[in-house]
Amino acid sequence: MDNEISLSHGAGGEAYRELVQEVFLPAYGSPELLELGDSALVEGAAKLAFTTDGFVVTPLEFPGGDVGSLAVSGTVNDLAVSGAVPRYLSVSMILEAGLPVEVLRRVAQSIARTARAAGVRVVTGDTKVVEKGRGDGIYITTAGVGTLDGGWELPPQRVEAGDALIVSGPIASHGMAVMAAREKLDFAPPILSDARPLGGVVRAALETGLPVRALRDPTRGGLGATLCEWARDEIDIVVEEARLPVLPGVAAACRLLGIEPMFVANEGVFLLSAPEEHAGALLQALCGHPDGRHAEIIGKAVAGKGQVLLETELGTRRRVLMPRGEILPRIC
Amino acid sequence: MDNEISLSHGAGGEAYRELVQEVFLPAYGSPELLELGDSALVEGAAKLAFTTDGFVVTPLEFPGGDVGSLAVSGTVNDLAVSGAVPRYLSVSMILEAGLPVEVLRRVAQSIARTARAAGVRVVTGDTKVVEKGRGDGIYITTAGVGTLDGGWELPPQRVEAGDALIVSGPIASHGMAVMAAREKLDFAPPILSDARPLGGVVRAALETGLPVRALRDPTRGGLGATLCEWARDEIDIVVEEARLPVLPGVAAACRLLGIEPMFVANEGVFLLSAPEEHAGALLQALCGHPDGRHAEIIGKAVAGKGQVLLETELGTRRRVLMPRGEILPRIC
Repeated sequence: MDNEISLSHGAGGEAYRELVQEVFLPAYGSPELLELGDSALVEGAAKLAFTTDGFVVTPLEFPGGDVGSLAVSGTVNDLAVSGAVPRYLSVSMILEAGLPVEVLRRVAQSIARTARAAGVRVVTGDTKVVEKGRGDGIYITTAGVGTLDGGWELPPQRVEAGDALIVSGPIASHGMAVMAAREKLDFAPPILSDARPLGGVVRAALETGLPVRALRDPTRGGLGATLCEWARDEIDIVVEEARLPVLPGVAAACRLLGIEPMFVANEGVFLLSAPEEHAGALLQALCGHPDGRHAEIIGKAVAGKGQVLLETELGTRRRVLMPRGEILPRIC
Repeated sequence: MDNEISLSHGAGGEAYRELVQEVFLPAYGSPELLELGDSALVEGAAKLAFTTDGFVVTPLEFPGGDVGSLAVSGTVNDLAVSGAVPRYLSVSMILEAGLPVEVLRRVAQSIARTARAAGVRVVTGDTKVVEKGRGDGIYITTAGVGTLDGGWELPPQRVEAGDALIVSGPIASHGMAVMAAREKLDFAPPILSDARPLGGVVRAALETGLPVRALRDPTRGGLGATLCEWARDEIDIVVEEARLPVLPGVAAACRLLGIEPMFVANEGVFLLSAPEEHAGALLQALCGHPDGRHAEIIGKAVAGKGQVLLETELGTRRRVLMPRGEILPRIC
């Protein structure tokens, strides 16, 4: 087939069929997709989780991942933190004319690899093409369906006074990996994105059977935005700055660029709130899983007035506010 | 809030929350969406249909519809022609910075209106923003989940010799409405898109209990592309040109622009194949529904060698080939 994507690849005719046959089917190849029906017909369950996310990251490929691994992880993780077992994925792409087919092929293979790691099947998809200058290489929207068969239904997110807050791994790695790649900052070793499916490590926590009051993967807006959403009228959240896990290279990059790690996007960690008396056992369960081995208890929820407070190493406290304005655009 | 979309509306912070609270929630307002969880938790079924489509139509608004009504109809119709009852919709948008919020508000309301008409709920969504010149106003990807509770499971699509082919309404209206709006061609009366949810009229056919061998909504590539997919090794499809329903204004526009109606996108008709002896009863069932009142038997499947043949009014036959290249880009 051609070396570059052109508008004809989006027109629903012969070129579109070629693209599907030569790029997408060999990569994803699920039986449902091979049917090429209008919809995928799949087995369901009495209770489902359903979610979607769009991905417009630039550059398309960065250390530790690409728009494809991100598009799978992001959606699968939204299902996982809802207590669901991720099952089926849809992949819809908007391609910019002029995109090298080779890049598309790599991204499709990355989608397939990440989906396998997450235990989900790509069962349906779509591709549109826009003129050069009306897109940016590849935009991907994934939607995911999960089944709630473990009985771990988690909403509404409701942090209570007396909860401890646990983060499952070092924060800010994804956002800083993309920033470094975009600004061509050479860190040695390079900063790697943390983008990965979190179903396994979430399950490790839920399978303890211990009460979990809130669970979320803090992506855009970072840990800070999630904490600000969780604090409410009569609850303050106090975070100890010294306990926030940040890898040394990531911390150095944040200092260099004057960016707070708390507000940088993550794609491979989650935040969990649970009664303080169970925090130790939950931490242990997380640390026993490869994707949770750097988990940390970072703070607690106390009676208060809806504020998030950061306790510095000097013992002072400052208020953390919901980020306003453009922090790091096009990071996911 | 602001009058224009800026990158900050995609950053996951305060501006994003404002956008969700002031534009999307008032429009869609489903209980699942109001939870603002990572996933929507919904009731399922033993067997599901799952599908997705991206929409990059230009202009965003055109006579008879807009990118919003299109994004709902397209996905819901893919579920309906699979025999499923459309239930849940996800809406993911990629906005271009500089988009007037007023346009977004209209599109969101159009999504809500079309979803209500289709009997589906928008239960989850996402919004990203790209820089000016990296998008084109609004791109929408919807995914849909339907339940297969009527026992009308239709794949694989398999037309047999002796089948009659029925189209549920006049073809080519959607594509020509968008073309006319894009090229600023003033037809009087204006050509209206046929974009609409087809669940009801599909059901009218299926509820007859008569055997349906194939069912599809011919969108991109038009009726012609679907027929070429349906013809196979030992089956020819013969279409009588004179019986193809095309509204007079649409036919005039096609002649003017030198475009074959058969290859123009539809968003509100479907094509059905069924044993010839049941075609009359199926046609009657379709004609009894407001969205099928102009249904027509357009041709038949016969023993052959995988060709689609168009029989002209002069009695000559010419072969219809799968369209190649760019026909009408950015039509959906």
